[in-house]
Amino acid sequence: MSHSPVGMEKWALDTPALLLDLDRLEANIARIVSRCRECGIAWRPHIKGNKTPAIAHKLLSAGAIGITCAKLGEAEIMAAAGIRDILIANQVVGDLKIARLAHLQRHADVMVAVDHPIHIQAISEAARAVGVDVRVLVEIDIGMRRCGVQPGRPALELGHQAHAAPGVRFAGIMGYEGHAMMLPDNEKKPACAEAIGLLAETRAQLEASGLEVGIVSAGGTGTLAFTPACPGLTEIQAGGGIMMDTLYSGGMYVEGLEHALSVLTTVVSHPAPDRAFIDAGRKTTNAEYSLPRVMEKAGVTVTGLSAEHGYLRLEGPGASLQIGEKIELISGYSDLTVCLHDRIHGIRNDRVEVVWDILGRGKLQ
Amino acid sequence: MSHSPVGMEKWALDTPALLLDLDRLEANIARIVSRCRECGIAWRPHIKGNKTPAIAHKLLSAGAIGITCAKLGEAEIMAAAGIRDILIANQVVGDLKIARLAHLQRHADVMVAVDHPIHIQAISEAARAVGVDVRVLVEIDIGMRRCGVQPGRPALELGHQAHAAPGVRFAGIMGYEGHAMMLPDNEKKPACAEAIGLLAETRAQLEASGLEVGIVSAGGTGTLAFTPACPGLTEIQAGGGIMMDTLYSGGMYVEGLEHALSVLTTVVSHPAPDRAFIDAGRKTTNAEYSLPRVMEKAGVTVTGLSAEHGYLRLEGPGASLQIGEKIELISGYSDLTVCLHDRIHGIRNDRVEVVWDILGRGKLQ
Repeated sequence: MSHSPVGMEKWALDTPALLLDLDRLEANIARIVSRCRECGIAWRPHIKGNKTPAIAHKLLSAGAIGITCAKLGEAEIMAAAGIRDILIANQVVGDLKIARLAHLQRHADVMVAVDHPIHIQAISEAARAVGVDVRVLVEIDIGMRRCGVQPGRPALELGHQAHAAPGVRFAGIMGYEGHAMMLPDNEKKPACAEAIGLLAETRAQLEASGLEVGIVSAGGTGTLAFTPACPGLTEIQAGGGIMMDTLYSGGMYVEGLEHALSVLTTVVSHPAPDRAFIDAGRKTTNAEYSLPRVMEKAGVTVTGLSAEHGYLRLEGPGASLQIGEKIELISGYSDLTVCLHDRIHGIRNDRVEVVWDILGRGKLQ
Repeated sequence: MSHSPVGMEKWALDTPALLLDLDRLEANIARIVSRCRECGIAWRPHIKGNKTPAIAHKLLSAGAIGITCAKLGEAEIMAAAGIRDILIANQVVGDLKIARLAHLQRHADVMVAVDHPIHIQAISEAARAVGVDVRVLVEIDIGMRRCGVQPGRPALELGHQAHAAPGVRFAGIMGYEGHAMMLPDNEKKPACAEAIGLLAETRAQLEASGLEVGIVSAGGTGTLAFTPACPGLTEIQAGGGIMMDTLYSGGMYVEGLEHALSVLTTVVSHPAPDRAFIDAGRKTTNAEYSLPRVMEKAGVTVTGLSAEHGYLRLEGPGASLQIGEKIELISGYSDLTVCLHDRIHGIRNDRVEVVWDILGRGKLQ
């Protein structure tokens, strides 16, 4: 625990270990920045997938205008690491959390999603008690049927309530086109246009009713091919694509992004010529949406995971493994893999360049 | 973080929070102890699901003869907490880990699974270098087709290799009837008898060949109704049943065990009369094998989880929820839920009696 692996060959690390290839990470970040610039849209990447302030600072250095968090606890960690402009893209609820939110405003410039007058009233009371203003975005359901008020009159009413509430600053609107993520490209493009179109219409209605809508935010990695070009958006939240995984590179292809995140594992048992087992199961990497994939090992595939084991199949004449051999896995869904670990090993040229504690892990929302 | 919640009402806790009802936990432990005593078999419960030394000590106080771990890192944490008799029920592989294993033997009495001569040779070398003896169990594939040597001649050969290796003490055999866990009871009973029968036969063959087989270990919570009564076993590993979950209480029914583990959550959004969302998604509770279930809230069911949200459906005239209301969820699979958290809140009579850090979480295998 106390011995730093910095400078070590990555293959010498004990396993399982979470690796992040820094060249690929930086190339992915540059790729998304350039895509957003081409489309004239700002980038406020979600950090819920990496939860790591050092990565958030890399995003800001590369051109992101701020960050997006899922939870208040993540926002507190990021603010403590010196990051100012933070969107919490979910509702923050409960007296304890609302008080924390208001206090956090003294140390950062936070924004939070609301979809009901209860949220606005609670923020207003806490903000006035602390003596701050807290920015809110009205969350709109743009077709996913998860959180969010309906577009049109309900969104307008909530926007005006936010604008009128003391201690609350109405900053704009957000949505999430999550229902479009898994569609094939020919359906995804019109689905994105329709979903983002609802935000654009609502923005126009709000502005026609006298409210300034500074921010219109949406966009995940799975729709990065289409949402940045949709008219009416001012910001894109996509963040997971900087690490990539087999989910994004499989059904949700994002051009030009490379697999930067992996898990280093060891073959621990090889009881038959066609079967072997590694020390990475569901407590180490995620297989809920897409199976992990073995990097650079011909004829070896992951067939499943149990809690503590990864199952490998060996096929073909070239396929061979030894007990003790190390195997690198591309994770299935990076967002649900990173949160299983305490630290990320930043790798460059196959050596450990830096180790980052995943500081936003395990905190209360 | 620094303010202890001990003494608080559980409903006043901020969410999401992992709760463990201590009365139910203790009743479940007593139930399994009594079941094992009826069958004249020892209990060495797996702690991979709770990873918490305080819980391991409760198990030992109640009559467990030792504990079972999945990983070397868990065994190190348990040894540091004063626990001596520890089975690591998997192969420990790699120079770094094998050296740790040998050093750990100075501070505990460990046992480890082997299924290949490579494992025995590595342990032998490290144990001799440190000047200790390390006990091994030969793992036998009793039908699951995961790790383990085949019964019969391969198991005999490996047993004798272990017996002959300096620094290694052959202590017995183990298997895991994981393939039987999900079967309906009428198929599960004969499947358990067949699987445990393979261990019993191998034990007889080993003893006939002159080796003493002190330990024959198997048995998970999903087969607890049958394995303790199977002849030939000396120890049962079942451990997850002390916490219970919807997986065990659904398809894998264990008589007399109650749901002790839960996650306290908050309703954060309620955008339509029939839909609401809580602050517990896949980063807080597990839904891979079985969905979580709402406790004591008529007409409200969990329909799914995304990374950060739980999806609730409201049905029927009595079903109602408020934003900010707290909801307790029985977890889907406790083993994959606890490892997502940093601490467990021990609850008695609806108040926090103790808070335990989940010390075995996030460590290297």
